[in-house]
Amino acid sequence: MEVVIDRDAFVKGLQMVQNIVEPRQTLPILANVLLETDGEAVRVTATDLEVGARVAIPAKVASKGAITVSARKLAEIVKELPTAAVSLRVTDTASVSLRCAGATYKLVGLSPDDFPPVVPASPASWVSLDGKTLREMLLQTSFAVSHDETRYALNGILFVLQGKDVQMVATDGHRLAVSKRSLGRGVGGMTGIVPRKAVSEIMRVLGAGEDVQIAITENQFVLQMPNFVMTARLIEGQFPNYEAVVPKAHPSRLVVSRQAFAAALRRVAVMAEERNKPVKLSLAPASLRLSASSQDLGEAEEGMEVAYSGEELVIGFNSRYLLDAVAAVERDQIVLELKDSLSPGVIKSVEDEGYCCVIMPMRI
Amino acid sequence: MEVVIDRDAFVKGLQMVQNIVEPRQTLPILANVLLETDGEAVRVTATDLEVGARVAIPAKVASKGAITVSARKLAEIVKELPTAAVSLRVTDTASVSLRCAGATYKLVGLSPDDFPPVVPASPASWVSLDGKTLREMLLQTSFAVSHDETRYALNGILFVLQGKDVQMVATDGHRLAVSKRSLGRGVGGMTGIVPRKAVSEIMRVLGAGEDVQIAITENQFVLQMPNFVMTARLIEGQFPNYEAVVPKAHPSRLVVSRQAFAAALRRVAVMAEERNKPVKLSLAPASLRLSASSQDLGEAEEGMEVAYSGEELVIGFNSRYLLDAVAAVERDQIVLELKDSLSPGVIKSVEDEGYCCVIMPMRI
Repeated sequence: MEVVIDRDAFVKGLQMVQNIVEPRQTLPILANVLLETDGEAVRVTATDLEVGARVAIPAKVASKGAITVSARKLAEIVKELPTAAVSLRVTDTASVSLRCAGATYKLVGLSPDDFPPVVPASPASWVSLDGKTLREMLLQTSFAVSHDETRYALNGILFVLQGKDVQMVATDGHRLAVSKRSLGRGVGGMTGIVPRKAVSEIMRVLGAGEDVQIAITENQFVLQMPNFVMTARLIEGQFPNYEAVVPKAHPSRLVVSRQAFAAALRRVAVMAEERNKPVKLSLAPASLRLSASSQDLGEAEEGMEVAYSGEELVIGFNSRYLLDAVAAVERDQIVLELKDSLSPGVIKSVEDEGYCCVIMPMRI
Repeated sequence: MEVVIDRDAFVKGLQMVQNIVEPRQTLPILANVLLETDGEAVRVTATDLEVGARVAIPAKVASKGAITVSARKLAEIVKELPTAAVSLRVTDTASVSLRCAGATYKLVGLSPDDFPPVVPASPASWVSLDGKTLREMLLQTSFAVSHDETRYALNGILFVLQGKDVQMVATDGHRLAVSKRSLGRGVGGMTGIVPRKAVSEIMRVLGAGEDVQIAITENQFVLQMPNFVMTARLIEGQFPNYEAVVPKAHPSRLVVSRQAFAAALRRVAVMAEERNKPVKLSLAPASLRLSASSQDLGEAEEGMEVAYSGEELVIGFNSRYLLDAVAAVERDQIVLELKDSLSPGVIKSVEDEGYCCVIMPMRI
């Protein structure tokens, strides 16, 4: 293998896959990326056996070949190089020499034959989405993904491709977020739980305005962009029946400016007890009063004028959950639907009908 | 106590003192700041019993008084407040009510009588410096301060006010940095070791172009700026005889662009062993070759054209120490003076005669 790559394209390519590599792993070769020639490109592949990613970087290919080298060291080297041509030459199966401007490196590698295959399935059908929509849907759900390793099925986002709709759902048992978009065309009928790590990597690499294709096979999630593919093993397990969780018709409805509500929540939550950050919402016609207190610190209170149709009501929430749910709305006005002090609240956007977040109340 | 303070001035004032408060402390009141009226200002004081700081914030004072409240909570609250007037009212010795726009707080406090006194000594004489000079001198020495808690006397910067010169020295036993400025006027004759925490706080609060006054008494360092004072208990102990450490006349001299040298060092150091990051410098007339290797990773090498007068020489250094020493030079060209492979190297600036950093070599 003998190739020449532009340094800046190399940096960008490595950035798209290097986070897949886990800092600690059992197999030494999983610390490496696979470099291999492919036509007029070098493909760089990383995997942790669950999630894999591959990027193709344009290159002058003088001779074909492959090698694996430390992902971290390669990224460190390329980052420090000046903007110039980088030439790579594999001398034997176990090392590669790298030259750029005045600098020369010899990197110890491992044989490409031992690199675990990262083979995307060949899905029966793909769903095309623009990157902006996918990113927005992930932002509207990823915050609610559980970090509790014992609740394995909740450690990812449920993707539902059904009829003409793409739907994503995440829950940690305390809140549940749903994002739904109609694409106006059939999307097949597949569902699968995409693991948290794949979700955060997609959000990291997703460019603005780029078109992406996604697919769900029996056990794999696949995402394709030009010169890039990511695969993730679906989480096996039973996702909760989310449709039963979303209340259908709460009688009380609060409409408020998203930014003003979030700012007041943050101010009041300063005085809330650290662990669950409980904040009390006291609702009356046209008025909302937020309050919090803790024995050691003191108390905080703030009133705001709002549009509220419903009965007088006092309800407590973990303010972090409210802030997460509100941050996922990109529009000016949010809606909070309530029933009583013990029933979950539902946060929606006034303008975006595809989003809602159900939050369990707290006794306070 | 009843006062009104501008929110933005309050934020800025709190930022200048709040880092003094340690996250964990034995006395509960050390988690608090002292608020007290002083003419047409509110003074905010923080201390950890070693280092103390006090800032005066202009205020409308309706009635005099004092209180102490949690430094962290107060800073969190004020940061979230809108830009508006903040009114504070101490209701009894144990709590203060705070109002701003629609938000009201009641903060539990502790009696000001129990707050440890932060009394700056009344130094016999002050030394005036412009903030830029002080900042530059601290940057040129602070990186070499020891973090080894068992070498107590090295956990700070030695200040030497002598004749017309201000001199600062720091060492961790592997390298020693000296910064010296002549002020052109007498500065008295005091020395003292200023603890690391005070040094980093000074660098944090030091504005550009502001004049500062410093003084050293028998057991205290004091720094004054308009509306601000910081005190630090001097470290007791014997600082090494630094003048004996700085080599007087090394025969070999390398002159090189600071940025090019640092960039090449960083590139080569990627392949150096993690712990001490050793890099080998091979010097010959007009040429410098940098190299590093580690058994697991491979090797790196880079040559550069330099001005070098001296014999052929190979010497190893911890590349982090070289990079720290070079980063402290703000000019274009640096000098590296050498004798042989076993003698320390000396980094200087071509243009700034007040700075030098002595670095012990490594056998590699």
